[in-house]
Amino acid sequence: MALKSFIEVSPDSHFPIQNLPFGIFKPEPASPPRPGVAIGDYVLDLSTISVSGIFDGPFLSGSDCFLQPNLNKFLALGRPAWKEARAKLQNLLSADEATLRDNPSLREKSLVPMSKVEMLLPIAIGDYTDFFSSMHHARNCGIMFRGPENAINPNWFQLPIAYHGRSSSIVVSGTEIIRPRGQGHPSGNSPPYFGPSRKLDFELEMAAVVGPGNELGKPVDVNEAGDHIFGLVLMNDWSARDIQAWEYVPLGPFLGKSFGTTISPWIVTLDALEPFACNSPKQDPQPLPYLAEKTSKNYDISLEVQIKPAGQEDSCVVTRSNFNHLYWTVTQQLAHHTINGCNLRPGDLLGTGTISGPEPESYGCLLELTWNGQKSLSLKGATRKFLEDGDEVIISGCSKGDGYNVGFGTCTGKILPSL
Amino acid sequence: MALKSFIEVSPDSHFPIQNLPFGIFKPEPASPPRPGVAIGDYVLDLSTISVSGIFDGPFLSGSDCFLQPNLNKFLALGRPAWKEARAKLQNLLSADEATLRDNPSLREKSLVPMSKVEMLLPIAIGDYTDFFSSMHHARNCGIMFRGPENAINPNWFQLPIAYHGRSSSIVVSGTEIIRPRGQGHPSGNSPPYFGPSRKLDFELEMAAVVGPGNELGKPVDVNEAGDHIFGLVLMNDWSARDIQAWEYVPLGPFLGKSFGTTISPWIVTLDALEPFACNSPKQDPQPLPYLAEKTSKNYDISLEVQIKPAGQEDSCVVTRSNFNHLYWTVTQQLAHHTINGCNLRPGDLLGTGTISGPEPESYGCLLELTWNGQKSLSLKGATRKFLEDGDEVIISGCSKGDGYNVGFGTCTGKILPSL
Repeated sequence: MALKSFIEVSPDSHFPIQNLPFGIFKPEPASPPRPGVAIGDYVLDLSTISVSGIFDGPFLSGSDCFLQPNLNKFLALGRPAWKEARAKLQNLLSADEATLRDNPSLREKSLVPMSKVEMLLPIAIGDYTDFFSSMHHARNCGIMFRGPENAINPNWFQLPIAYHGRSSSIVVSGTEIIRPRGQGHPSGNSPPYFGPSRKLDFELEMAAVVGPGNELGKPVDVNEAGDHIFGLVLMNDWSARDIQAWEYVPLGPFLGKSFGTTISPWIVTLDALEPFACNSPKQDPQPLPYLAEKTSKNYDISLEVQIKPAGQEDSCVVTRSNFNHLYWTVTQQLAHHTINGCNLRPGDLLGTGTISGPEPESYGCLLELTWNGQKSLSLKGATRKFLEDGDEVIISGCSKGDGYNVGFGTCTGKILPSL
Repeated sequence: MALKSFIEVSPDSHFPIQNLPFGIFKPEPASPPRPGVAIGDYVLDLSTISVSGIFDGPFLSGSDCFLQPNLNKFLALGRPAWKEARAKLQNLLSADEATLRDNPSLREKSLVPMSKVEMLLPIAIGDYTDFFSSMHHARNCGIMFRGPENAINPNWFQLPIAYHGRSSSIVVSGTEIIRPRGQGHPSGNSPPYFGPSRKLDFELEMAAVVGPGNELGKPVDVNEAGDHIFGLVLMNDWSARDIQAWEYVPLGPFLGKSFGTTISPWIVTLDALEPFACNSPKQDPQPLPYLAEKTSKNYDISLEVQIKPAGQEDSCVVTRSNFNHLYWTVTQQLAHHTINGCNLRPGDLLGTGTISGPEPESYGCLLELTWNGQKSLSLKGATRKFLEDGDEVIISGCSKGDGYNVGFGTCTGKILPSL
C-alpha cells in the first residue's frame, strides 16, 4: 500500500508524502526566510522541526543547515544528508508516526497553510548555466535561421552546448517581468531599432540544482554526476527574440535573456523523481568516453505551458512537452561542464534549454510555435505571435505515479509594459 | 608640490599616496581576511584603522564595511563613501599628519610589509561579464576566422558586444592554472580531438568593479554610469582556443574560458585614475542616444605582458598595449548592460575584452601575436605559438604621472600540466 501522511492530501495534489520538495518561505511578511517542504496544502517549517531535534541522524545532527535563509548549506552536505533528511521527513509525516501527528503545539508551530506563505528563491545562485539539449528545439531554430540543410551544427551531437546565463536576474515564480528595451536589427541603412522588445517569448525549461560541487581543476566523473544534483525546478527563460537575433553573433545570448529568468519555488529532489526515471534517447554518434554513462537516465515529467492573455479570465494551454525529450542528460551536462576543470558550487543552476518535443503541439517556445511570428496562436478569443503586455505565462510540471503525483507546482510570470 | 606620505615610497613604486588601491589580505596565514590599501611596500590594515575611529565622516562613521572579508559592503555604499575613504586615507598617510605617523603602536598594528601578506580576491563576484571592446582585437579575430571582407560584424559598431563569463573560477593573481582538457575540432570523419588543450592562450584585459548597482528593471543612465564603477583591475582571461573554436557556435564561449580567469589583487579607483583620463576614440556611426555620453572618457594606462617560459630565469615582454585603445568605454558598457533592465550588484565584474592596439607589437593575446599559431614568438632562447606547461604569464599596468605612478602591480599565473 502506498505511503500515506496523517495530513490529508488530495489525490491531484502535486505534493503528497512521496514528493516532499524543498523551498524557502516566509510564514508572515515580517518573518525571516527559512527552509520548508511542501506537504499537501501545507508547508512544513524545517527551522522549527530542526530546533525540536528531529534531525538526529549522523549527517544532520547538530547542523544549522535548516536555520539558513537559503538551501545552499544543506545542498553542500551532499546526497547522504539529503537522503537522511528525506527519510526523517517521510517518517515524521507518515500516518503511523505520532511525533508530529499527536503534538498539537508542534503542529501549530511547524505546519503553515501554503495559501498564507510567501515563497522566495530557494537558493543563492552563484552561477547559472543554460544548456541547449533538446534536439527538436535545436533543429527548429536551425531551420528558421540557417535553413534545413545545416539545421544542427556538427558540434551539437558531440557535446552538450551551453552558455553562461545571468544569475542576478533569476527571480521566483510570481515575480512580474518588465518588458525589456533594447536594439533590434536595422532595416536597410537606418540605425538599429531601439525600444521595447517586439518579440518577447517564454522558454519552457527545467533546471538542475547543484549539490556539493567540485574543486577548481577537478572534473566530476559522469557516473558520479548524479550525486551532484539535488533536484530539479521548472524554469522560464524569458527571451527577447529581436534583441537576441541582433546581438548574439559571435559571443552568444546576452541582453536578449538577462532581463529575467523565472524558477519555481519548489525543488523536487532526484530521490522523489527516481520512480519516474526512464531511458534517455539513443545517442548517435556515441559520445566520447568522458560523456559515456553506465546508465543514462531521463525522467518522465509531463510539462505544460498555459498563457492567460491580458484582460482574459481563462488561460489556454499552448504546449505540452516532457522532460524526457532531452537528448543530453543532466548528468552528461554536469560532467561536461567540469571536464575543463571548471568548479561548480552548491546552488548553481544548470538549465536544460528549451524542451521541445517532436510534434508542433510540443514545441517549447513561441518562436517555434508561431515559427518566428509567421503564424498566430489562437487563445480562445485572443491571438498571439509573441507575448503582449499583461499576458501571464504559467508553466507546470508533474510526474504521475500510481495514485499520486510528484509535481513541481507552477512557475508563473506576468509581463508588465516597458518603463 | 606633489602630495607625499611619511612612508618612504620609491619613485618607481606603483603605490604612492596618489594611488591607494583597495584589496583584501591576510597579515598571517591564520588571520581572517580584511580590507587594506597599498602604500609603497606596505599594506595599511583598514580593519585596524576603522576600529581606531579614523573614519568619522558622514558616510563611513559607524560602518562595519572595513570589518568584512571582502569589499562588497564598501562598494555598495557608493561614490560619496569611496571619496570620503580616499580623502581620510590620503590625509592619514600624508607627511604632515601626525595621527598615524607619530603613533608607533598604531603604525605597528596597521602597517604590514607587503612581502609578508597573502592577497585574496578583493570581492565576492556575483556575476562576471566579458565585453569585446577593442576594435583591433575584433578585427584581427574576424580576419582570421571569417576573412578580411567581413572581419567585423555590423552589430559590433552599434553596441558593446559581450557574453556572460563564469564567476566561480575567477582567481587572484598568483594562482596556478591547470591546463584544461576538452574537445577540439574533429579532422575528417574521425571523432573530435579530446585531451589537454593544444592552444592555451592568455588574454590581456582589464575589468571594472561595479559599485552600488541597480534594481531589476531600472537601467542606469550612461551619464551616471561612472558612479557605478568603483575602479579597475588587471585581468587575464585565459583561453583554450581549440576548445573555444569547436564549441562556440551558436551560443558563444563556454569551456574554452571557464577553467580560470585571473585578476590582480589591487583595485585602483577611478578617483586615482582621474588625472589619466583621456578622450575615447571617435565612434562612427554615432551611438544610439542611450549610449551617447556627454563626456566619453578613457584612461591612459600602459599595459604590458611578459612570459617567463618554463625552465627559464628571465621573462620576455611579448606585447605592450594601452587601456585607451578601447572603442567602447566602460561607462557605455555598463549602461548597455542595464538597458534591458538587467540588475548589477556590488562586486560584479565587467571585463573589457582583449585590449589590442593597432600595431602587431600591441596585440593582446597569442592568437593574434602568432596569427593562430602560423608563426612563432621568439622569447630569448625559447619559441612559442601557444602556452606550454610551466610558462608564467605576467601582466602589468601603470599610469605615469609627474614624478609618480598610479599602478596596478601585476596579474600573474603559471600553467600546470593537465591531470
